[in-house]
Amino acid sequence: MTTPVRTHPAATQALLARLGAAKVKTDEATCFAASFDNMRLSFMPEAVIRPDVEEDIGIVLKLANEHKVPVTVRGRGTGNTGASSPIHGGWVIHLDHWDKIEIDPISAMATVQPGAITAHINELAAEHGLFFPPDPSSLKYCSIGGNIATNAGGLRAAKYGVVRDHVYALEGFLPTGEKVTWGAPLRKFVSGLNIRDLWIGSEGTLGVITKATLKLVNKPKARRTFLLACRTDEGALEAAAALMGARVNPAVFEFLDTQTVEAAEKRRGSRVFSTAELHGVEETHAILLVEIDGHPAALAEDAVKVRAWIAQYAVAFRETDVEAEAEALWDIRRTCSQAMYALGNAKLNEDIVVPFRSYVELIRYTREVRDRVGLATPTFGHAADGNFHVHIMYDRDNPEHCRKAEQAIYDVMKKVVELGGAITGEHGIGIAKSPFLRLQHSPAEIGAMLAVKRALDPNNILASRPDLRAPQRLGASSGQGHPRLDKH
Amino acid sequence: MTTPVRTHPAATQALLARLGAAKVKTDEATCFAASFDNMRLSFMPEAVIRPDVEEDIGIVLKLANEHKVPVTVRGRGTGNTGASSPIHGGWVIHLDHWDKIEIDPISAMATVQPGAITAHINELAAEHGLFFPPDPSSLKYCSIGGNIATNAGGLRAAKYGVVRDHVYALEGFLPTGEKVTWGAPLRKFVSGLNIRDLWIGSEGTLGVITKATLKLVNKPKARRTFLLACRTDEGALEAAAALMGARVNPAVFEFLDTQTVEAAEKRRGSRVFSTAELHGVEETHAILLVEIDGHPAALAEDAVKVRAWIAQYAVAFRETDVEAEAEALWDIRRTCSQAMYALGNAKLNEDIVVPFRSYVELIRYTREVRDRVGLATPTFGHAADGNFHVHIMYDRDNPEHCRKAEQAIYDVMKKVVELGGAITGEHGIGIAKSPFLRLQHSPAEIGAMLAVKRALDPNNILASRPDLRAPQRLGASSGQGHPRLDKH
Repeated sequence: MTTPVRTHPAATQALLARLGAAKVKTDEATCFAASFDNMRLSFMPEAVIRPDVEEDIGIVLKLANEHKVPVTVRGRGTGNTGASSPIHGGWVIHLDHWDKIEIDPISAMATVQPGAITAHINELAAEHGLFFPPDPSSLKYCSIGGNIATNAGGLRAAKYGVVRDHVYALEGFLPTGEKVTWGAPLRKFVSGLNIRDLWIGSEGTLGVITKATLKLVNKPKARRTFLLACRTDEGALEAAAALMGARVNPAVFEFLDTQTVEAAEKRRGSRVFSTAELHGVEETHAILLVEIDGHPAALAEDAVKVRAWIAQYAVAFRETDVEAEAEALWDIRRTCSQAMYALGNAKLNEDIVVPFRSYVELIRYTREVRDRVGLATPTFGHAADGNFHVHIMYDRDNPEHCRKAEQAIYDVMKKVVELGGAITGEHGIGIAKSPFLRLQHSPAEIGAMLAVKRALDPNNILASRPDLRAPQRLGASSGQGHPRLDKH
Repeated sequence: MTTPVRTHPAATQALLARLGAAKVKTDEATCFAASFDNMRLSFMPEAVIRPDVEEDIGIVLKLANEHKVPVTVRGRGTGNTGASSPIHGGWVIHLDHWDKIEIDPISAMATVQPGAITAHINELAAEHGLFFPPDPSSLKYCSIGGNIATNAGGLRAAKYGVVRDHVYALEGFLPTGEKVTWGAPLRKFVSGLNIRDLWIGSEGTLGVITKATLKLVNKPKARRTFLLACRTDEGALEAAAALMGARVNPAVFEFLDTQTVEAAEKRRGSRVFSTAELHGVEETHAILLVEIDGHPAALAEDAVKVRAWIAQYAVAFRETDVEAEAEALWDIRRTCSQAMYALGNAKLNEDIVVPFRSYVELIRYTREVRDRVGLATPTFGHAADGNFHVHIMYDRDNPEHCRKAEQAIYDVMKKVVELGGAITGEHGIGIAKSPFLRLQHSPAEIGAMLAVKRALDPNNILASRPDLRAPQRLGASSGQGHPRLDKH
């Protein structure tokens, strides 16, 4: 734990005088708890503010502009990129206590505060036969404000889309402290410039969200889950492209490469499919998890297509429409991320996207990297939208490993962009991916983004990022002198 | 026809020298044809440019910035708000000849140039069992660039969403002339600020679109159409809210008020439903048109729900799943807009949105306005998303009528905003709705929009609008001295 750096003492005194010590904390423990997210790089703020009423946020932002204090907004800190870490110190606005949820079943809308937990929204929506589709893997403890700030995706994005597809309106504050509303709790709205969708995914750099109206959709009536083994990574990915081309629209379509399956099987101490099921094949295989949902009759037809596809591409499979059995099929997918720590005590976890045509080339490249640098590169992810989590596993106490992991991830990012892909599909940029931003975007594009940032935040108060200044590297081992915390 | 005003002769000479007379036209006929859209207010440009290659657009914009020449981008000119009219003169970039369409059936994407006709995209997509859902009523002759620039909706938006829900990537030029790409032909993308969705719906004020990658979806397998009569406008709208609350998700759900039905029946010379079908009721009634689509089994279940709902709310109905019979049920909806000219030789056609809870209050208010000002206010529109076309019918040659129509539409807009609604749901702002922008948005919101516009277009070159400067009125009869053209 490091002591908060008091670089804005007069401003913080003024803030305390305005809002009082009940809302503004400056003690080390509170500041430390707000100093990092799931990327686990700690940057100490000098005050943490829990606003009571909306007006408090306006007060904080106006003071911050007056005194040029960096401000970072924070929900539950589950992001993977350091986007909610106060990398320049200053103040943190903490909103996890603002967690109201209201469901309007007639309009199929939810009005939520930013601290509401995503899974809670779904629990309340389910009472009316509705659901909010985005399902980041942290959905049981992440806050919706962060989901909006990162335009989160998840497994069901394949069929149902991401957060941006499910937001009607946002209320909040401009970086300069004025209250604004973008969009409205309406199904159609085209008045004025669309700053709502500019805010979504801007990772807290352009405004502070205080309320959101979300689109809910009808819960599907039935679902059926298939788990299948394909002999090779390439075989599984060719199969994936074939299923998408066959106009089946899976709700979930997950790929686990052979490295991932091997690690997961080691952790569970048994094979997923028995040797008998695999017709005697002993080698590790890749896995595909497919879930289709919808009307039972439509589902039955799709199941016929899926089975024909399985017969062509898989060496073994199981299927079920029973909830508890489906949970068993999901087990390997749910545990594979943790299981990877058998391959290294630290990982770089990316969330790149590639087009269908490049699936095979991507997975071959991850193995090339593995063979070249000698670090495991287990990869799993969303086969219906090309959003794969490529990992580089390494030993955090081995400087050579750290250097190699950094180089490896840079090479992967470069390859992804060459393949026409994206450096991030659902985690966002934060500080983790800022070194790669200029691989993705041209100087003119970065220039336009910077111009928009300056236009809305002339004093660069809100969540300012290294990515919006100059190209630089910020890789595995670099913490700019800030402690990297143990993960797990 | 008015002569082009040559306020930038040196700049236009420089443009001709760079691009040549084959691409740059300055004759009166060409300039006039590019001077108006479907709003029919003419503003003469001084040159019309048909670029040959993308680089031409960069050249035009850089010259325009150098010489401070206003530039307006134009597709097929079917917009309703004057957004593609060169209201400050200058140059028009005409893109209707850029109309390439490529379908990628595996990825379910279409890559299109801005001049491609929306219906043509659907014809090509249909060969692969796919479609592009947005269906503005001009879809057979409008261009996709304009659909994107206005975030167009249409009838099927109820179930399938609007244009913004179906765009993966945009390529084009910043107002300052640099080539940029926003998003990518990928199903997930969260890198950098989301200027793609800021461009969508910005009506040509923030950039020039030269290519778009669209999301296509599976064509539904079956559809069933219902046409029903409800005794009163209020009854029909209460029925609409009830169907939405029953979790039926109609693909099309159109409301026609009694004024609209009366005009349409007058034009066709017969009642839609016979007196026998109406059980002897002679008074004009409201009409609802419902179309459900999807898997036949799901459709059959929804049809049961719809019939139960009809039994509760309608006095007469017809239904069919036969294409040709459906076309007959659609007839009144397709012809009602033209039929209104029986009620006045001109109309103000708005596209407001109100929440479900305010449907009845809105329709009552339109009749209040009718009774107060003595002008017909026929209203029809999209009952599943509250996006109603409120019309004020008037005699364009009667100055008293024009004044009253202007006042009436202002009152309607004020009421809509009071009801928590939107001044535009699918047409956009353009010049037609700029007088109402400050009813919808606060000074802080307008300030943020202006800041973004200035950031991306520092010389205010591209499609600059009255709405982004100061509050003003620009109603039915005001053409700022520019000729209002006869409609039809």
